[in-house]
Amino acid sequence: MSTSTAAAVTAEELFDQACGQARRAAVLASVEALLGWDEQTLLPPRAGGYRAEQAAAVAALVHGIRTDPAHGDRLARLAAGPLARSGPAEVAGTIRLLNRDFQKQSRLPARLVEELARTCVEAQQAWREARAESAWEKLRPWLERVFALKREQAACQLPDRDPYDALMDDYEPGASWPAVAARFDALRGQLVDLVRACVGSPRRPDDTLLRGSFPEAAQQRFVREVAARIGFDFSRGRLDTTAHPFCATMGPHDCRITTRWDERFLPTALFGVLHEAGHGLYEQGLPTAWRGLPPGEAASLGVHESQSRLWENLVGRSAAFWEWCFPLAREAFPGPLAGATTRGVQRAVLAVRPSFIRVEADEVTYNLHVMLRFDLERALVQGSLAVADLPDAWNERFERDFGIRPPTAADGVLQDIHWSAGLVGYFPTYTLGNLFAAQLMYAAEAALPRLDRDMAAGRFAGLLDWLRRNVHAHGRLVESERLVEQACGGPASERWLVSSLQRRYGEAHGL
Amino acid sequence: MSTSTAAAVTAEELFDQACGQARRAAVLASVEALLGWDEQTLLPPRAGGYRAEQAAAVAALVHGIRTDPAHGDRLARLAAGPLARSGPAEVAGTIRLLNRDFQKQSRLPARLVEELARTCVEAQQAWREARAESAWEKLRPWLERVFALKREQAACQLPDRDPYDALMDDYEPGASWPAVAARFDALRGQLVDLVRACVGSPRRPDDTLLRGSFPEAAQQRFVREVAARIGFDFSRGRLDTTAHPFCATMGPHDCRITTRWDERFLPTALFGVLHEAGHGLYEQGLPTAWRGLPPGEAASLGVHESQSRLWENLVGRSAAFWEWCFPLAREAFPGPLAGATTRGVQRAVLAVRPSFIRVEADEVTYNLHVMLRFDLERALVQGSLAVADLPDAWNERFERDFGIRPPTAADGVLQDIHWSAGLVGYFPTYTLGNLFAAQLMYAAEAALPRLDRDMAAGRFAGLLDWLRRNVHAHGRLVESERLVEQACGGPASERWLVSSLQRRYGEAHGL
Repeated sequence: MSTSTAAAVTAEELFDQACGQARRAAVLASVEALLGWDEQTLLPPRAGGYRAEQAAAVAALVHGIRTDPAHGDRLARLAAGPLARSGPAEVAGTIRLLNRDFQKQSRLPARLVEELARTCVEAQQAWREARAESAWEKLRPWLERVFALKREQAACQLPDRDPYDALMDDYEPGASWPAVAARFDALRGQLVDLVRACVGSPRRPDDTLLRGSFPEAAQQRFVREVAARIGFDFSRGRLDTTAHPFCATMGPHDCRITTRWDERFLPTALFGVLHEAGHGLYEQGLPTAWRGLPPGEAASLGVHESQSRLWENLVGRSAAFWEWCFPLAREAFPGPLAGATTRGVQRAVLAVRPSFIRVEADEVTYNLHVMLRFDLERALVQGSLAVADLPDAWNERFERDFGIRPPTAADGVLQDIHWSAGLVGYFPTYTLGNLFAAQLMYAAEAALPRLDRDMAAGRFAGLLDWLRRNVHAHGRLVESERLVEQACGGPASERWLVSSLQRRYGEAHGL
Repeated sequence: MSTSTAAAVTAEELFDQACGQARRAAVLASVEALLGWDEQTLLPPRAGGYRAEQAAAVAALVHGIRTDPAHGDRLARLAAGPLARSGPAEVAGTIRLLNRDFQKQSRLPARLVEELARTCVEAQQAWREARAESAWEKLRPWLERVFALKREQAACQLPDRDPYDALMDDYEPGASWPAVAARFDALRGQLVDLVRACVGSPRRPDDTLLRGSFPEAAQQRFVREVAARIGFDFSRGRLDTTAHPFCATMGPHDCRITTRWDERFLPTALFGVLHEAGHGLYEQGLPTAWRGLPPGEAASLGVHESQSRLWENLVGRSAAFWEWCFPLAREAFPGPLAGATTRGVQRAVLAVRPSFIRVEADEVTYNLHVMLRFDLERALVQGSLAVADLPDAWNERFERDFGIRPPTAADGVLQDIHWSAGLVGYFPTYTLGNLFAAQLMYAAEAALPRLDRDMAAGRFAGLLDWLRRNVHAHGRLVESERLVEQACGGPASERWLVSSLQRRYGEAHGL
């Protein structure tokens, strides 16, 4: 029967059917994304339990569509057929990647998918309370359940691989922890040296001018203007307020970024929004004709992070950017910036100061925060650390790396939403993103000789266009390291990040 | 096979299975509600098309669960079994109503459900544009599609009934248009007389003190305090901003009301929020143990509207309410209310003034707005009026009933979202709600001798508790007219509304 059906259907028809099914799953997955966005942004306090049921129900439906055996059968036939061998790159890539997705998904029992979705919604509610009260014990039992479920997920999906690699594969396809650890180790020594030199310099930048009274309403107007200027399309997106900033996409024309506001410290929202808008520009730049299919999806979280970090740090902390932005900022905040100069702000945004909170960290120490989480979550997954021992492990490692000890759990182990949200194996993609961003920016500068002058005049379209063509347009047809290599004309390496940081921070600190 | 299966399952197990399936549908229907709420409140301009796909996909899933033949089979067996005859009232009622729902739903083809959902999302987008530009032609083709689809729906669902009655049945089970029209006709003459007397009175209340400068931020604080005071639970709900106010429920602890703000006219938001909070109190008062099942659902839209109207008009426009509220209002708006008195505000909120916009209409003329729509939409459904002729028909009828002609389409036929949203047969429930509200308030006053003194002291818990016990607690186990009769100890009648309006507005206008 299967043969006679196969004979009656052309490869093209089969491909359309498989894509239709993948797109149906994507429509429901985008509904799940809305449930998550709303949950973090607007949900009434007592509605968390029912939201968990809603999320679990939709997650189960998505899983059912993605793991439908008839879908798998069609994908297997496509993989053995002519389109996979000699179809256009997008078509062959779609067949290859949908097959890979199907294999991974269908090894996950529906029960586990539902339980993960439900547990993570409730764990995030618990995290919000625990963080507000700095009460670790409110989160601990939830994290124990989350990590147990994630280990189960790893064992189901990629039983032959190290469990941490299996989890990382969801975010950075093809990455393996020994390789990542080796690259991070190569980076760590140079960062520690640079931090030490910056902190010890007698000519450290003064960032007190960024501290003062920055009313939220004025910040709202200012950061919206900046986000729109770099290219974030508000007719296809939103900016809202949450405790933990994020970017979520609920459709090809519905990308939503969030931020928090600190009325006493301008960089929190400004660089937060530049970061999330960088994610948003990537989402808004993916080929909409392929929405719901691999050519219309992001390559990896590392590549995603390269886009956010590029706009946050390599644009937002550049001298050229502040040539344009400083007059705008002074108009928005005439009080605190009355005595400031362009040069003063250019140096202030490059101040290095070890601190407790990752999302407020300077660009140089940031990667030390990430490496700490990478090592701790790996130990939790691999079984060499118990959740109950996590706060002590965090504080000890933090003191070793930063020379300071978090005074409260909210300043330490409770600061990130990721683990409560089931995002394990996700943190290393932040530093991979920094590596990719630095390398991409060097390549963009080489390709765009007027880039500095354009940015100084508030023109960012050339850079965005370069990223659109070299990164966004490829969807996830090319794996991250290869994508960076293609875009930059040389293999991915951490030396670009080291060079970029040494040049910019060295200069700002008079090294 | 069916017999042997039936033999193996007890009636109680069968009932649990049927309830489980109804609740699964309710969880997804609540996700659909979130898609709709978000669409009207937050959706980026260009995201409407994909939102329509999302809504259609979820609607189809809900429809699939509700019309699953195995579900229908279980319900039919339950209806013929012992629980339907001699089970507890909630159980027998659940079996009867789920059967009724199944019959109606399963006569609707999935194709029509999806097309209605998709068309209505896009029609609402068109309505927003058309209303903003007062451009009827932008909406016309969408309304033609909506009314054609609604006629098709009526013919499928209740082919033996008049098509308008078939549509009304979705909102007011058991209502028939000749009976509603007869009751409305009895009301109309008395309202027209009262409006004429009020407008012609030399002692009309002056409402200029409610016009002035009422900043949105101060209104936000003020109306939130009022809504919380009457009992709206913000830990189980929200208040947001939209062009057209509404109340939507996305779960047993997630009821969201919306309003618009008019900085030059306080009553727009205040009475709008009292109205929507009245709906919200009903939703928050339904038995959560029965969520997703008939005993946990509202009785009808007429009953729903009775709750909103009761709080908006019979509480919010009462002298007692303003004894408590006036000091609060003067504190919130010291400028415009500086020279006002309690007595002045008590009379001002009862000013009768024929105007174009239904949602801004006074309590007396309001029902004339509703009756106009009831007659026009019935003519559209029954085929005696074409959509293309609607603006003229609207304007002529409006001039006849109100003595004034809408200057623009936005002031006339474009003002309501209902028809674009597929809500046809819905308008009459507004006036039914007013009838029920007046009758319920007379009964509550009789049962609560301290009610006026309580309201004057800002205590509303006694009234809410009476409504909880006499209305909310019954879910939709009792049909609307019977529910009102039970609560009030006498048959539902329009005379209570007439009496209430004549008493209150007569006094305010010195008649």
